[in-house]
Amino acid sequence: MSILDTIAGPEDVKRLDEAQLDALCAEIRETLLKTVSHTGGHLASNLGVVELTVALHRVFRSPQDKIIFDVGHQVYTHKLLTGRRDRFDTLRQEDGISGFSRPNESEHDVFYSGHSGTSVSSAYGIVRGNQLNDDKSFTVAVVGDGSFTNGLVYEALNNAGRGDCRLIVVLNDNEMSISRNVGSLARYLAVIRSKPEYVRFKARTEAVLNHIPLLGKPLARALMRTKTRIKNDIYGSNLFEDMGFRYMGPVDGHNLPQLTDALETAKLVKKPVLLHIHTVKGKGCEYAEQHADVYHGISKFDIDSGEPLTSGTNFSEQFGKYMCEAALHDRTLCAVTAAMALGTGLSGFEERYPRRFFDVGIAEEHAVTFSAGLAKTGMKPVVALYSTFMQRAYDEILHDAALQGQKLVLAVDRAGLTGEDGETHQGIYDTAFLGSIPHITVWSPASYRELHACMHRALYVDPGVVAVRYPRGSEPDFPPDYAPSFDTFDLYGDENAETAVVSYGRVSAFAMQAAAGLPVRVVKLGRIRPIDPQAVEAVLRCRRVFFFEEGVRSGGVGEAFALMLLERGFAGQFSLTAVPDCFVPQASVDSQLRRFGLDADSIRKKITE
Amino acid sequence: MSILDTIAGPEDVKRLDEAQLDALCAEIRETLLKTVSHTGGHLASNLGVVELTVALHRVFRSPQDKIIFDVGHQVYTHKLLTGRRDRFDTLRQEDGISGFSRPNESEHDVFYSGHSGTSVSSAYGIVRGNQLNDDKSFTVAVVGDGSFTNGLVYEALNNAGRGDCRLIVVLNDNEMSISRNVGSLARYLAVIRSKPEYVRFKARTEAVLNHIPLLGKPLARALMRTKTRIKNDIYGSNLFEDMGFRYMGPVDGHNLPQLTDALETAKLVKKPVLLHIHTVKGKGCEYAEQHADVYHGISKFDIDSGEPLTSGTNFSEQFGKYMCEAALHDRTLCAVTAAMALGTGLSGFEERYPRRFFDVGIAEEHAVTFSAGLAKTGMKPVVALYSTFMQRAYDEILHDAALQGQKLVLAVDRAGLTGEDGETHQGIYDTAFLGSIPHITVWSPASYRELHACMHRALYVDPGVVAVRYPRGSEPDFPPDYAPSFDTFDLYGDENAETAVVSYGRVSAFAMQAAAGLPVRVVKLGRIRPIDPQAVEAVLRCRRVFFFEEGVRSGGVGEAFALMLLERGFAGQFSLTAVPDCFVPQASVDSQLRRFGLDADSIRKKITE
Repeated sequence: MSILDTIAGPEDVKRLDEAQLDALCAEIRETLLKTVSHTGGHLASNLGVVELTVALHRVFRSPQDKIIFDVGHQVYTHKLLTGRRDRFDTLRQEDGISGFSRPNESEHDVFYSGHSGTSVSSAYGIVRGNQLNDDKSFTVAVVGDGSFTNGLVYEALNNAGRGDCRLIVVLNDNEMSISRNVGSLARYLAVIRSKPEYVRFKARTEAVLNHIPLLGKPLARALMRTKTRIKNDIYGSNLFEDMGFRYMGPVDGHNLPQLTDALETAKLVKKPVLLHIHTVKGKGCEYAEQHADVYHGISKFDIDSGEPLTSGTNFSEQFGKYMCEAALHDRTLCAVTAAMALGTGLSGFEERYPRRFFDVGIAEEHAVTFSAGLAKTGMKPVVALYSTFMQRAYDEILHDAALQGQKLVLAVDRAGLTGEDGETHQGIYDTAFLGSIPHITVWSPASYRELHACMHRALYVDPGVVAVRYPRGSEPDFPPDYAPSFDTFDLYGDENAETAVVSYGRVSAFAMQAAAGLPVRVVKLGRIRPIDPQAVEAVLRCRRVFFFEEGVRSGGVGEAFALMLLERGFAGQFSLTAVPDCFVPQASVDSQLRRFGLDADSIRKKITE
Repeated sequence: MSILDTIAGPEDVKRLDEAQLDALCAEIRETLLKTVSHTGGHLASNLGVVELTVALHRVFRSPQDKIIFDVGHQVYTHKLLTGRRDRFDTLRQEDGISGFSRPNESEHDVFYSGHSGTSVSSAYGIVRGNQLNDDKSFTVAVVGDGSFTNGLVYEALNNAGRGDCRLIVVLNDNEMSISRNVGSLARYLAVIRSKPEYVRFKARTEAVLNHIPLLGKPLARALMRTKTRIKNDIYGSNLFEDMGFRYMGPVDGHNLPQLTDALETAKLVKKPVLLHIHTVKGKGCEYAEQHADVYHGISKFDIDSGEPLTSGTNFSEQFGKYMCEAALHDRTLCAVTAAMALGTGLSGFEERYPRRFFDVGIAEEHAVTFSAGLAKTGMKPVVALYSTFMQRAYDEILHDAALQGQKLVLAVDRAGLTGEDGETHQGIYDTAFLGSIPHITVWSPASYRELHACMHRALYVDPGVVAVRYPRGSEPDFPPDYAPSFDTFDLYGDENAETAVVSYGRVSAFAMQAAAGLPVRVVKLGRIRPIDPQAVEAVLRCRRVFFFEEGVRSGGVGEAFALMLLERGFAGQFSLTAVPDCFVPQASVDSQLRRFGLDADSIRKKITE
């Protein structure tokens, strides 16, 4: 029986001796590799926080003490240690355990956490609530250095700093966000790391002193004050102390005794503490250490070689290809992304056009407003973000892009249902939030060729802010007799039919498949905002109109279409099938499409009912 | 003829001697006071930047050099100096000049700027675009210390810091955001300000040295490097240098020669510079200096006493009243706001319940995520923000509040058309962006009593995240025979009429006024998400349904209502009157309502056509 098998909860971690702990960490790494090679998931970041997570569960008492991981994809070890070992092989599968922290899965998961930079805010809220309740529990936010490039963290540090409260922020510095980390903070952390590591001795000394009761704690504190002064003399400035935090670190994040000591010391401080630990992303797995960006989030792969088991092109790659080709002829074309060069298919662009490529860190708002500045100088910025992350820049798209009337293109990757990442990563809201922005144009291509055509229109034909949204993965199969126009909409099928099916994006391919052999006309929208009135006219005389939408029902394209029909006097039946008022849990994309009645079979069933 | 009368543009500012400049500043202050006392507007912040703006226009060459004010409400002096003096008395009036920077008004206004913290991002975009164009112009972002509490500024500093580019950030530190500034940064700036002000001498020395050509500049730079080392020894840490900026300051922001010298020095630096200047908000006007929060943004007032000329209660005050009363009985009730205690009516709550009041700085995202943390501990947070600022927290409302299933109330102040602040401050998007969020409930009360009732339901009846949105100003007049139920919807008027008018919020009062004496039934929605199906049933058999909405047409409540009608087989005529696909410029609220056909006269005309 392995040691991991004996761990039913955090209390079992506390019982182990040093040798057992080392063995436990090795077993955890083995489990992570084995599982993620089968399920896909976040590998490198989880390999990096094995010791840290073990140390946290030795020092704190979850769930009374709250441990919040930011981003919540670094919780695999946490899950293994908090009663979810048995089900760990269901990671990211339908009805299985989530690849992110998820409160409805365990009392040890404090928040759903899928977007960067939220933990210090939510932790500080807990701290202040606990104070009002006279609850002495500890609250710990474990934040990756990537998340530290997000502005929300600073808003929270600014608010929490110098407060009379106990808040422990662990900065997990692995020198990476998703791609190699960028910006001043990354360079700043590198400087700190290069300084003599006396702090670990400090932590150790204090921990030892604390074992002498009564005398220990005041003495430790006095010593700490002195040492902080010494440290400031050695290090010079410290950004985190300027923000009102007691700074501790850097500590080797793979050295369990040091980590434990440092966390114990942090518990003694009666004000906000920032504990800076240094970890290696991908630790213990050669290929993951070497290519931490590739193994940040990965599909199924061969456990020996690390080679991915899937292949073929996809929308992201096609987008990158378009950008590279267009940049050859257009010297004003720029690409902007938020730590997602690889994910959005822009690695090639970065390599070929480094001066016109901007990775701004995990800072979606800044990406958009920065691009508005670029546009002001005559550049043509294309901001490539995943749909779910773009929702963080709603205000900036509205104010700094659209209101300014700038020529700016939003490349909305992973639009629609996205599968295994679950509730926090669905790209189903962009139709609604982009739709509410004045003057914006939104295209929803359904094939690679259409993606290229839409990008061209977005950059060189349509005025102002134009969004091009496309799904995760590969293009669907259209019927061979469908001849795409790449225009605002296409008609397909029986043009005299009294039944019409309207859709957009990849679902339009399923609609065409569903219509095969039926007296049905299919309208495939290419441009979903504004909807071409001709597309509405095309179904106005039908007796029945079915609208299928891979996006939220509330505020989406179907509602807009319904209004246009109604105001034009449509008197037939109308039915909208879209993602209803719910959050969408993890499953394969196919399963999610089925669940919401958006696959070909469901569509056929619906229209033949 | 005054000196101000001779200023047609920035070049005229450059011609003046020291005595003339002092006189100019006095004349500008006089003009600001005179105008704002008549038009209302941002007074205290503009009084504080008179000398700074004059210095900027002496040192830089706008519009080639770009000067970006953040927030853009501190541009009054800038407008007086850039050819808009003649029309300055039309400030904030319909068709008059804007109270914010507005590019379509002058080539000297670089961006529309109504929300905090955007300037460093957009300025850095311009800097990088200029590099690509080989354009050597300067780019200056003038940022209030209040804006510095916004995370977007840090995302930009992190991205721009240590870059090989010339970007000048002027931190206008007046110790205030809108209310007294909060957080670590404010305390940090106070520490810097208290240190010996040797930097002004430094700036001066360098400026003098620069007058010796060729020899001067390298010498100045060498001296600067030495002095920076000395400064770091004196000051210890410097947050801005940690972020990769060359720090200069603090400089007295009311001393023109010092300011000019400092700005000239900043131009010499070949990397990003942060120039910290210290100004007095309200400078030169006793009551504005004393009560800078009250005179931050103010309606018409008596120029001698400073007394406001308007009175009477309003929705914000009523909200504050409800909160104070409820907090008396409910010890879990907390109030959270983003530098808007006064504006949202929470000053009384702050005074009476200081432990349960949280002003987090101009940090709307953090306000929401922090509140999610509070809720986790059993507190009942009410986040009070203006509608236009709440759109900055769309992602956080979706993920950190709604997805967590937290009990959290959003008090959405200034919802709907907001009048004189213009394009950047309309509260017309919340219906759309809140509407797209799963499980959320949204109430739109139209009277004070209804506001109280909705707050009660939001806190104690409805589950999860509930938004209560209410307009700027006072309640409208409802007909005396309207008996409000404060329920999900009310019916009024001729219950057998074939014509129905549906609306919500204050427009529902105008709809009732418009229906007087006509065979019309009026449906007033109280809850706008989800819409009560009974409200739809109530008009399903009507021949004509008119929907009037004080919010965006695209993605708003009218579209949702249309879909519900259509799916239920409605076969009559439907017409939606809402804010169309445009940005709404400044005018009085009444005029804006008329413009979009939402006042009683327009409604009556529409339904009797």
